[in-house]
Amino acid sequence: MYRTHTCGELRAENIGTEVKLSGWVQKTRELGGMTFVDIRDRYGITQLVFDDSKNAQLAENAANLGREYVINIVGDVIERESKNKNIPTGEIEILVKQLIVLNESETPPFTIEDETDGGDELRMKYRYLDLRRSPLQKSLKLRHDMGIAIRNYLHKQGFYEIETPYLIKSTPEGARDFVVPSRMNENQFYALPQSPQTFKQLLMVAGYDKYFQIVKCFRDEDLRADRQPEFTQIDCEMAFVERDDILNVFEGLTKYLFKEVKGFEFEGDFQKMPYDTAMELYGSDKPDIRFDMKFVELTKTVANSGFVVFDSAEYVAGITAKGCSEYTRKQLDALTDFVKKPQIGAQGLVYCKYNEDGTLKSSVDKFFDADALKQWAEVMNAEPGDLMLILAGNKKKTQSALCELRLEMGKQLGLMNRNTFAPLWVVDFPLLEWNEDSKRFFAMHHPFTSPKPDDLHYFDSEPGRMKANAYDLVINGVEIGGGSIRIHDKDIQSKMFDTLGFSKEEANDQFGFLMNAFKYGAPPHGGVAFGFDRLVSLFAGFDSIRDTIAFPKNNSGRDVMIDSPSFIAKEQLDELNIQLKAKQ
Amino acid sequence: MYRTHTCGELRAENIGTEVKLSGWVQKTRELGGMTFVDIRDRYGITQLVFDDSKNAQLAENAANLGREYVINIVGDVIERESKNKNIPTGEIEILVKQLIVLNESETPPFTIEDETDGGDELRMKYRYLDLRRSPLQKSLKLRHDMGIAIRNYLHKQGFYEIETPYLIKSTPEGARDFVVPSRMNENQFYALPQSPQTFKQLLMVAGYDKYFQIVKCFRDEDLRADRQPEFTQIDCEMAFVERDDILNVFEGLTKYLFKEVKGFEFEGDFQKMPYDTAMELYGSDKPDIRFDMKFVELTKTVANSGFVVFDSAEYVAGITAKGCSEYTRKQLDALTDFVKKPQIGAQGLVYCKYNEDGTLKSSVDKFFDADALKQWAEVMNAEPGDLMLILAGNKKKTQSALCELRLEMGKQLGLMNRNTFAPLWVVDFPLLEWNEDSKRFFAMHHPFTSPKPDDLHYFDSEPGRMKANAYDLVINGVEIGGGSIRIHDKDIQSKMFDTLGFSKEEANDQFGFLMNAFKYGAPPHGGVAFGFDRLVSLFAGFDSIRDTIAFPKNNSGRDVMIDSPSFIAKEQLDELNIQLKAKQ
Repeated sequence: MYRTHTCGELRAENIGTEVKLSGWVQKTRELGGMTFVDIRDRYGITQLVFDDSKNAQLAENAANLGREYVINIVGDVIERESKNKNIPTGEIEILVKQLIVLNESETPPFTIEDETDGGDELRMKYRYLDLRRSPLQKSLKLRHDMGIAIRNYLHKQGFYEIETPYLIKSTPEGARDFVVPSRMNENQFYALPQSPQTFKQLLMVAGYDKYFQIVKCFRDEDLRADRQPEFTQIDCEMAFVERDDILNVFEGLTKYLFKEVKGFEFEGDFQKMPYDTAMELYGSDKPDIRFDMKFVELTKTVANSGFVVFDSAEYVAGITAKGCSEYTRKQLDALTDFVKKPQIGAQGLVYCKYNEDGTLKSSVDKFFDADALKQWAEVMNAEPGDLMLILAGNKKKTQSALCELRLEMGKQLGLMNRNTFAPLWVVDFPLLEWNEDSKRFFAMHHPFTSPKPDDLHYFDSEPGRMKANAYDLVINGVEIGGGSIRIHDKDIQSKMFDTLGFSKEEANDQFGFLMNAFKYGAPPHGGVAFGFDRLVSLFAGFDSIRDTIAFPKNNSGRDVMIDSPSFIAKEQLDELNIQLKAKQ
Repeated sequence: MYRTHTCGELRAENIGTEVKLSGWVQKTRELGGMTFVDIRDRYGITQLVFDDSKNAQLAENAANLGREYVINIVGDVIERESKNKNIPTGEIEILVKQLIVLNESETPPFTIEDETDGGDELRMKYRYLDLRRSPLQKSLKLRHDMGIAIRNYLHKQGFYEIETPYLIKSTPEGARDFVVPSRMNENQFYALPQSPQTFKQLLMVAGYDKYFQIVKCFRDEDLRADRQPEFTQIDCEMAFVERDDILNVFEGLTKYLFKEVKGFEFEGDFQKMPYDTAMELYGSDKPDIRFDMKFVELTKTVANSGFVVFDSAEYVAGITAKGCSEYTRKQLDALTDFVKKPQIGAQGLVYCKYNEDGTLKSSVDKFFDADALKQWAEVMNAEPGDLMLILAGNKKKTQSALCELRLEMGKQLGLMNRNTFAPLWVVDFPLLEWNEDSKRFFAMHHPFTSPKPDDLHYFDSEPGRMKANAYDLVINGVEIGGGSIRIHDKDIQSKMFDTLGFSKEEANDQFGFLMNAFKYGAPPHGGVAFGFDRLVSLFAGFDSIRDTIAFPKNNSGRDVMIDSPSFIAKEQLDELNIQLKAKQ
């Protein structure tokens, strides 16, 4: 037996008992004829003490222990002289009688502390050491606890967790698939699932009613900061439901998780906002509504002033930053530089200060007199002490830039508290997006999303006008997940494929099994998928999903710890009947 | 809203209430001016009644409903005249006032009944219809319930479920990997995990202490009846443990599952049996101990009789079939044919009847007189009324054939009750297996398995003699899973790779990350992996794992429902920098 207790377990009431502990050496120090060793495991840290005067050899052995040595000790729990109130074991220490080194350790390449001295690359390479640090230990525990809570909640609601296959079929629609050559079926390939979408719909056809799965999904996309080639979804589907039945269940799940895992209770129902409203008010389909600062459109208000930037703009809109009228020239220049960054792409920034004394001062005083500016202030609900920030141009791009500016101001004004949570259902998304390059419609969500019933009559005349019976859950500006009511009528599904430019053959080739299934009594159904990595990240207060994942990949899709992907043997390629293409 | 109740929910106490139900039409029948429709969902079946005299049109619409139509009805719960005690809703029926057809259905290609008329291939192609059948619905519910129970048990024991990556590194050791070409890392490949083995060991190095995961694993092997290219493991690892610590936890899990999910309680501890004993007594490392019929070795007892088959045999052994002395010539011939089947491969079968009258009659009376046969009976513990069945030849092959014969007799004598469960830990496996073809040792379990500490001294002199600190859990002759204490010392691990014929470069290339990790304080650790599909199959009483899986592959690794694997576009191959090899 390696231990009677963990390193986080002993308290004052254990004083006087003999214990056995195992763990890692956090640090050693010598002080007045005593050697102190902190021993650590995932449960906590316990102080060991070796008395030089009682057993000089043992104390010397202890003094020679290196950081991260794995040790096993036997000793007596005694009261600590100088108690440490910061740790739960701080009232006691162990007077050690026996010490065994279970394994030595080389000096780690970085310190195993909450704040480490190791850089990103180094910590990724030695991920098994980085994972010893307390913030990561807490993160993986949080992830586990959330997984358990999600499963128990859905189980109680009558959901079954059903595993869907990982070796499926490649479909060109959507993101790029990872593929897997089949040895037994020459020249053919499996694909790894981007989501279990079609399988969960088949489970509804099969009568399973309420399905969920916490499941890995795969997308071979160029990676951005917060993307991983493999990621985890909480994937759900329900039959015989309308939109609000689904929203109720998953709003319930979200509230339950916040309460169980974070002790945070929401008041009332989550707000619902149509996509169009979200775009008008926040320029985003995932607005952060922890703070207000809504867009106000000024296109008409500012028209025909002779200021060509406004006069020629499709769209002019602004936000009011409360209490910022005293922003300096330097601060305003910095905001202008911010909106002009290539990834934001505004041409410039117009500001108007509503000074405390009631005067107004704008960057475009040449074109707008005090009365005009007063009118802006009225329209924008600005008060003395506020700062109005205005962008103009193409509507879509300007909305997007103003959205970034709003978030930047939210940050500067400290309105984005990590411990405040502002959830929002964004609903009524457009069904289709027109792609100018390929001159065709794409499904905004996916081709199985149902149009809103009232919009069905636009299918032939103006398909671009149709709204989808789709919804996203957004918390603090983070898209936690989304879903839709699906098409369950084979004729509507077939019409959808037509509208997306699929030939009958293509549709049949890729989704024939689903359309076939719809011939045999498909029930009305719909579902949702939440990004588990992002949800954990939101709960943990992390900026990135990476530290919610035990073994993440870097931005080139590499696992630098195991050095993968890697070259494989020619025999393996031969068996799969493939070969590498010669370099061009 | 599509329903107020499910189709399995209404009882006598609901009589008089108006309800709304949705589901599938199981069957319709007309009887004395009434039309009866059975409506089905995953919760049960409810009888609907349409009164011709009250609403002729409605009754006609009901009569026209086809099998598997999806309908929605409103009606009143009334008392049923002829109650059906076989179903929980049998006391009531619904007098329907309103009927909506939510979706029609073509006539299904087979009947959706407990016993269907559809063949295997057809049911696989229309898996979404097969999944509507009650035995499969029960199987997936059982699987879900077991998943929840496993997670809650391990959670309570302090385990974390931690997700390990699916895109990992190919290693030639072990079974064949599925590989995934990397687009971003030209000419390099990921592999799909055969198990999370190295990752769970790294999690122990990282201090996570108690890890588990219910996880998909992948092996590109030629498929046998009970194999799937993707399968699910309950994968676990613990640090600071010895063998029996692990066995206790997973014996506890097994008992908990049987009790929670099947209501079955085991008495006492599971038996532990060394591998060598299992081979001697049952000729198998996964003996079915629901019944006795142990092997008795007769090599010495039968020596030097002049019967060349015995005299030349390395090994002679038999089993005693209680009460089978009256087996007919025909039955004995059938047994002889059975053991001579190529997949069993015995040369012949010797029998000896111990008749009720005390006389003995064998198939080799020419060589053995009554006294000799009497001696057999004594050695084999046979009594009047029993039948002794004896095989001879090469030891390994004969043990294996006698094992099959024993199981066949167990079947014939009804000793393999599906509702009896006989668990067994098989322990002390050989560490290494010599492969004559490649003239090298292979790891019997995997290269990370620790030798038994007492055997370490054989490492240099006689590595083949070393026993592994490894164990399997066997229930009713089915290997549920296994595991081992791992090597945590980098020098022993390196010696192991040497013994397996890895060059330093190969070992470093494939497992360098693990050996590196072992330099930084690896704790003693070990673990276990249970086959989840098999465990569900055992609980469900199925012969095959296939019906515990929602969407299984056939024996060519194909999903015939979605028709996968499939050909992919040349553009996809180009992006991956691979091409198909020209046909030879």
